[in-house]
Amino acid sequence: MPFAFTLKKTDGRARRGKLTLTHGEVETPIFMPVGTQGSVKTLSPDELEEIGTQILLGNTYHLYLRPRHKLIERMGGLHRFMAWEHPILTDSGGFQVFSHKKLNQITEEGVHFQSHIDGSRHFLTPELSVTIQRSLGADIMMAFDECTPYPAEHDYAEAAVERTHRWEQRSKRAHRTPDRQALFGIVQGGMHRDLRARSAAQIRAIGFPGYAIGGLSVGEPKELFLEMLDYTVELLPTGEPRYLMGVGTPTDLVNAVWMGIDMFDCVMPTRNGRNGMVFTWDGPFSIRNAEHKEDPRPLDPECTCWVCRKFTRAYLRHLYKSGEILALRANSYHNLFFYLELMTRMRKAIEEGRMGEFRERFLARYKGI
Amino acid sequence: MPFAFTLKKTDGRARRGKLTLTHGEVETPIFMPVGTQGSVKTLSPDELEEIGTQILLGNTYHLYLRPRHKLIERMGGLHRFMAWEHPILTDSGGFQVFSHKKLNQITEEGVHFQSHIDGSRHFLTPELSVTIQRSLGADIMMAFDECTPYPAEHDYAEAAVERTHRWEQRSKRAHRTPDRQALFGIVQGGMHRDLRARSAAQIRAIGFPGYAIGGLSVGEPKELFLEMLDYTVELLPTGEPRYLMGVGTPTDLVNAVWMGIDMFDCVMPTRNGRNGMVFTWDGPFSIRNAEHKEDPRPLDPECTCWVCRKFTRAYLRHLYKSGEILALRANSYHNLFFYLELMTRMRKAIEEGRMGEFRERFLARYKGI
Repeated sequence: MPFAFTLKKTDGRARRGKLTLTHGEVETPIFMPVGTQGSVKTLSPDELEEIGTQILLGNTYHLYLRPRHKLIERMGGLHRFMAWEHPILTDSGGFQVFSHKKLNQITEEGVHFQSHIDGSRHFLTPELSVTIQRSLGADIMMAFDECTPYPAEHDYAEAAVERTHRWEQRSKRAHRTPDRQALFGIVQGGMHRDLRARSAAQIRAIGFPGYAIGGLSVGEPKELFLEMLDYTVELLPTGEPRYLMGVGTPTDLVNAVWMGIDMFDCVMPTRNGRNGMVFTWDGPFSIRNAEHKEDPRPLDPECTCWVCRKFTRAYLRHLYKSGEILALRANSYHNLFFYLELMTRMRKAIEEGRMGEFRERFLARYKGI
Repeated sequence: MPFAFTLKKTDGRARRGKLTLTHGEVETPIFMPVGTQGSVKTLSPDELEEIGTQILLGNTYHLYLRPRHKLIERMGGLHRFMAWEHPILTDSGGFQVFSHKKLNQITEEGVHFQSHIDGSRHFLTPELSVTIQRSLGADIMMAFDECTPYPAEHDYAEAAVERTHRWEQRSKRAHRTPDRQALFGIVQGGMHRDLRARSAAQIRAIGFPGYAIGGLSVGEPKELFLEMLDYTVELLPTGEPRYLMGVGTPTDLVNAVWMGIDMFDCVMPTRNGRNGMVFTWDGPFSIRNAEHKEDPRPLDPECTCWVCRKFTRAYLRHLYKSGEILALRANSYHNLFFYLELMTRMRKAIEEGRMGEFRERFLARYKGI
């Protein structure tokens, strides 16, 4: 059995499950650290294990351009290349090529784009995306879709939904390795309920072992995000894992788990960490602020990560202000530790049937994004 | 006993010893990683321990300017501030203020300089240097000297030697914590033998528990460096530790140990690592080179560090070319591991009376800087 999803327990709409993948098991709900270029920025594989990472995400777009997927394949695949023995999910590359609006021309066949590295021209299709992801050897691959930006008129979003439908059909047809790589479908539709419903029905009709929600948290107001998420989750089947792509803040994770999401990925803990923002159970703060200049406390007195056991805020602020790489490492490590600890606590809360209470307490205490 | 140096064994001029310091013992000859701003660049305290670091170096100039020595003192001293429980040596700050030639005015009293951070004006004297180092709480402090640049005429170097003599006398007079901090003297004299001899006699006459050689490896040809080192080592007493400041390449370390040096520090393993240069028993190479693009070998097949156990050259080259911080970490870790392993092997060779043979084999095999 290359892929299985077991639902162990539900608590309201929240779900406690287990994914069985080629490179190991994943307890859900889970957060996946993002290893864009074959590295979760600043961190080593040993540290990722230490933090409790069960599965991480690799970016097809970046690895296709550099060092090229064929090189990674010749080096034994992405797991071996980056010395990560546990599960990996790769995205389709679609989101990245669509993020570079000026560089693209979208056709029915695929997307023309220019490399952000050297300006070279490329053409990404559903078939090529699957080929790249096959070379990388991820446990979970994502179907190639068109991510709708925000805001998008109904006509525009509708065309994207229809194209996504055709592209995901082609993705599934091109998929040759279901014995060791699961291919997930993605629901689009922008902020239009009818399109979300249509997209979900289309993607479910194609049939995938897992379903992702794309095109949320792309700039829309938080209320609209929650409303669309709430609506879209209910369109997905209950027997397969549900993955909310590119989300989000700690608050987003808590709300989305409560609505029934099983999987998340986001660059926020690492990217914001590199910008000096650290997350705590009371909310995030910037270690750059002068108030921490002589603060002998750890980043978060409740945290048990090595950064909080060893370093004061005063020292971490000094490192950050001095441009020391150790500051970026420490913040990234601490933030990912916090995100994974948050997921651990939510899994436990679901197991014990108190996820609703957990959510209320979390939201009452946690201030900020 | 706050400070002791025990000579355990000699092999020719090479010495195998042990330093007893306030924060622990140090087996010599030893290499000290440089933690300029309170951090050995890219590495955590746990990693430094893992690598086998026995003592590290902190820079008085940098820590005085940021975060200020008084702040570090209020935070419990440099050891606690940077979470390093083992010995620390701090330099006097002299070398750094003299490196910024345009910013300085040297007077008999001290050196006027401007901060490289914000241009603020400061005045560093032997007394202030000792005060700063007392606040930092290093196990070993260095007397304030005037480092002679290369080339320097006899008259210029002579004036610097005489001033160094007076400044080191003042440093010793200002030293109030000999019970827990050892103050080392420094011999200058440029590339002039008579001045080296005069400086050594003057500094020995003041009397210190350890002696450093300054002003070497400052741009002079390698042969002249070795010649002056050879000459100067013999001017130092045999009962105290000998520290060759700011040196050097692996070849320099092997030659200097063979001449009787006990202590070294240098930014080369970390700085060059961040520039892509990695050291191996066959010599250094640049991981940026295209030849490593698909090389499945570790950086050094003989090395047992985690980088060499986990990563291929192909992956490390990819990380470096992609601007990933993990590349800087991996190179720095590997290089320091190599430097400390080199010292371990030399200590063993001296113990076993085969340092001469070790040196010959090393120099025959190792190519490059």
